[in-house]
Amino acid sequence: MTKVAVIAGVGPGISAATARRFAAAGYQVALLARRRDALDPLAAETGGRAYPCDLTSPEDVTKTFAAIRADLGEVEVLVYNAGGGVFADVEHITPDDFEASWRVNAYGALLCSQAVIPAMKAAGNGAIVFIGATASRRGGPRSAAFAAGKAAQRALAESMARSLWPAGIHVALIVVDGVVDLARTRAQRPDKPASFFIKPEGVAETVYQLCQQDRSAWSFEVEARPFGETW
Amino acid sequence: MTKVAVIAGVGPGISAATARRFAAAGYQVALLARRRDALDPLAAETGGRAYPCDLTSPEDVTKTFAAIRADLGEVEVLVYNAGGGVFADVEHITPDDFEASWRVNAYGALLCSQAVIPAMKAAGNGAIVFIGATASRRGGPRSAAFAAGKAAQRALAESMARSLWPAGIHVALIVVDGVVDLARTRAQRPDKPASFFIKPEGVAETVYQLCQQDRSAWSFEVEARPFGETW
Amino acid sequence: MTKVAVIAGVGPGISAATARRFAAAGYQVALLARRRDALDPLAAETGGRAYPCDLTSPEDVTKTFAAIRADLGEVEVLVYNAGGGVFADVEHITPDDFEASWRVNAYGALLCSQAVIPAMKAAGNGAIVFIGATASRRGGPRSAAFAAGKAAQRALAESMARSLWPAGIHVALIVVDGVVDLARTRAQRPDKPASFFIKPEGVAETVYQLCQQDRSAWSFEVEARPFGETW
Amino acid sequence: MTKVAVIAGVGPGISAATARRFAAAGYQVALLARRRDALDPLAAETGGRAYPCDLTSPEDVTKTFAAIRADLGEVEVLVYNAGGGVFADVEHITPDDFEASWRVNAYGALLCSQAVIPAMKAAGNGAIVFIGATASRRGGPRSAAFAAGKAAQRALAESMARSLWPAGIHVALIVVDGVVDLARTRAQRPDKPASFFIKPEGVAETVYQLCQQDRSAWSFEVEARPFGETW
Repeated sequence: MTKVAVIAGVGPGISAATARRFAAAGYQVALLARRRDALDPLAAETGGRAYPCDLTSPEDVTKTFAAIRADLGEVEVLVYNAGGGVFADVEHITPDDFEASWRVNAYGALLCSQAVIPAMKAAGNGAIVFIGATASRRGGPRSAAFAAGKAAQRALAESMARSLWPAGIHVALIVVDGVVDLARTRAQRPDKPASFFIKPEGVAETVYQLCQQDRSAWSFEVEARPFGETW
Repeated sequence: MTKVAVIAGVGPGISAATARRFAAAGYQVALLARRRDALDPLAAETGGRAYPCDLTSPEDVTKTFAAIRADLGEVEVLVYNAGGGVFADVEHITPDDFEASWRVNAYGALLCSQAVIPAMKAAGNGAIVFIGATASRRGGPRSAAFAAGKAAQRALAESMARSLWPAGIHVALIVVDGVVDLARTRAQRPDKPASFFIKPEGVAETVYQLCQQDRSAWSFEVEARPFGETW
Repeated sequence: MTKVAVIAGVGPGISAATARRFAAAGYQVALLARRRDALDPLAAETGGRAYPCDLTSPEDVTKTFAAIRADLGEVEVLVYNAGGGVFADVEHITPDDFEASWRVNAYGALLCSQAVIPAMKAAGNGAIVFIGATASRRGGPRSAAFAAGKAAQRALAESMARSLWPAGIHVALIVVDGVVDLARTRAQRPDKPASFFIKPEGVAETVYQLCQQDRSAWSFEVEARPFGETW
Repeated sequence: MTKVAVIAGVGPGISAATARRFAAAGYQVALLARRRDALDPLAAETGGRAYPCDLTSPEDVTKTFAAIRADLGEVEVLVYNAGGGVFADVEHITPDDFEASWRVNAYGALLCSQAVIPAMKAAGNGAIVFIGATASRRGGPRSAAFAAGKAAQRALAESMARSLWPAGIHVALIVVDGVVDLARTRAQRPDKPASFFIKPEGVAETVYQLCQQDRSAWSFEVEARPFGETW
């Protein structure tokens, strides 16, 4: 029986690399994002399955995870990569910006987690990895909305780690501290050398290795930061 | 002209003591909470003014702060004390619990802050103090909802401090790390000595002193913790 | 009977302002530094007493605190302000630089603390305040020696707070996060406006207020940071 | 040419497992500890080489790393595992206890690091991993000496990471948050199940994986904590 890894929040960077990494290790990958056209090529490439889903909708999440269970079996690994938010200070965000950031970074993470915890708990085994950011730890002047969402996600992850580790569920958080190497980010920073960027494959490898750790020596929070970054 | 302090989220403990402390120092206090009957006795006692308000409603907050401005003048100090949330682990909270905690701890804090920032910025002067909790820093096993709300509040506060301090607005966070001394908490912990509890007056004094700090030496995050607490 | 405050590590900035603040509040101040000529003018100004002392020498510290006790009585407040260290990265410090930083920032703090704890414990009352720095929390690239000394001091302070608060001794740490306003630092940064610098009086006021806190709501770690600082 | 890994501070637990892990991956391991008899069996088992050395002596460290260089070649990986200290509160440690903890946890770490940095820098490649503890982050009531040593080590590590990563040297810290599974610790805690303990092999695997990370996504600080631990 093939093990199942869900990648929630699929785009061109970390999530795609993570899907490839788990597929290469023999996992069946379930790919979740709002739009199907973002999912199909990656599903084809990885032999995975695409599930269009609004991750911030309780009904959608419930329905989607039921479908995954029916199609592929119980989920062993959940990687929550959905995220984002406007970058502006408190004077230049709207309450709706603030809410949108919280909803995708934190509320959706709760919904997906609650969808997989019961079966993981029954199995006494599983991993839930959240993809965080610098803002998970630090509220910068221009991350009034984004940092509040990521901090809520981090607090949820920490609470979950404390309550779920003893049940054999490895909850962890990756703090992506830098700019991920994408066509889009390269275009935005044409002045920067390749060494400035975080390779999605590097983050994906760390996600994968976290899921291989012996349970006597688990990590909760792990940074992924380029060697040339000032921090 | 009397200086105005808004206490948002008025109950019997820290907020009441803070209202008394600022009133004693000559401030005109505006007292905000959902129900008028919670406000009237304190308004009478402090010579303050009661404003029933749903702090999580943008319309209500806008209307209330307009009334304060018309009644009392511009706000110099905002103390955001609204808070709360269920205490349960991720398996025993609902998405609605999670949202309710975020809404009162973080979203309402944003709404009230945005209502006072423009005038404070124009004056080049003001203070915004958030009343946090242990959960502002740490996601405990049973604070899946509460810690996510308080962490979002803390991240917002930090972002605001970084963007607003240079404009002369002192944004700060008090981490209340223990059980506040109230009739209710005494009844819940009849086994505990008086020294176990945090006196609301102690926290209120720290809030007041924060607002007196010279701007060349401001504090952002300050604990209030009873001397006998294990931490 | 006059209360006694010891200022250990006296120079022209925070320590002098702290001595003045406590003297103004009616304390008898004992001023400690290596060279007498650094102490005498301040002793004259504050009505305090000068004790030349190598704070990193167990014998000297023992002898000095015995003299203070004989001259002035038991110590109620100890402010440990001695500090310093070279600013260089790991490749440009010597093991002796590393040791010197640890000795003045951490070892001397232990020696002075151990000299006052027994009497404070017997009295069930007292305060020990360490003057830390940005480097107390963060090892910057050029603070290989300084940060290691300040981090050791912070860890000692935290351990002491946890073991001594229940005995009524308020151990606290001030994180001075910026450049203190001194003739020397002004000369080094002629390009900076007055608002760039931390006023020693601001830090001294925070030290004093910490020592006035109600024990039901003590703070352990408090920043002193200029409002215009980027952090 | 075989790659060389130095394990500094060899005992029966994490260091031995790390030596085995790197030997299994084809590294030549150099084993350092004060007493030769602690080293010889592990050297025989791993095909490594034993170097008796007082890690807190500048002369000894210089001589030892010169010998390693002559015998095996330049060092690619340094794992600093030496550590320890009395567990007591500030009233029950001596200044010598405090110094001894700092010397083995922090000063020795500096000496060994300075011995390997120049060649790593010339190569643009290398890894230095410090084995920390819960006390690296937190000064507990009974770790007045131990936490001060570990915090100094952590601050040094962080400073080194910030200055050396850009040169291609991966400096990292493992926070071992629990009790390592050893004959000695099992005897001390006969009441605890196997799941209470951290397996040395788990930590060793994390050390090894850190040294394999792509430099675009390095981690600095990584916990190793048993799944059943309360934290």
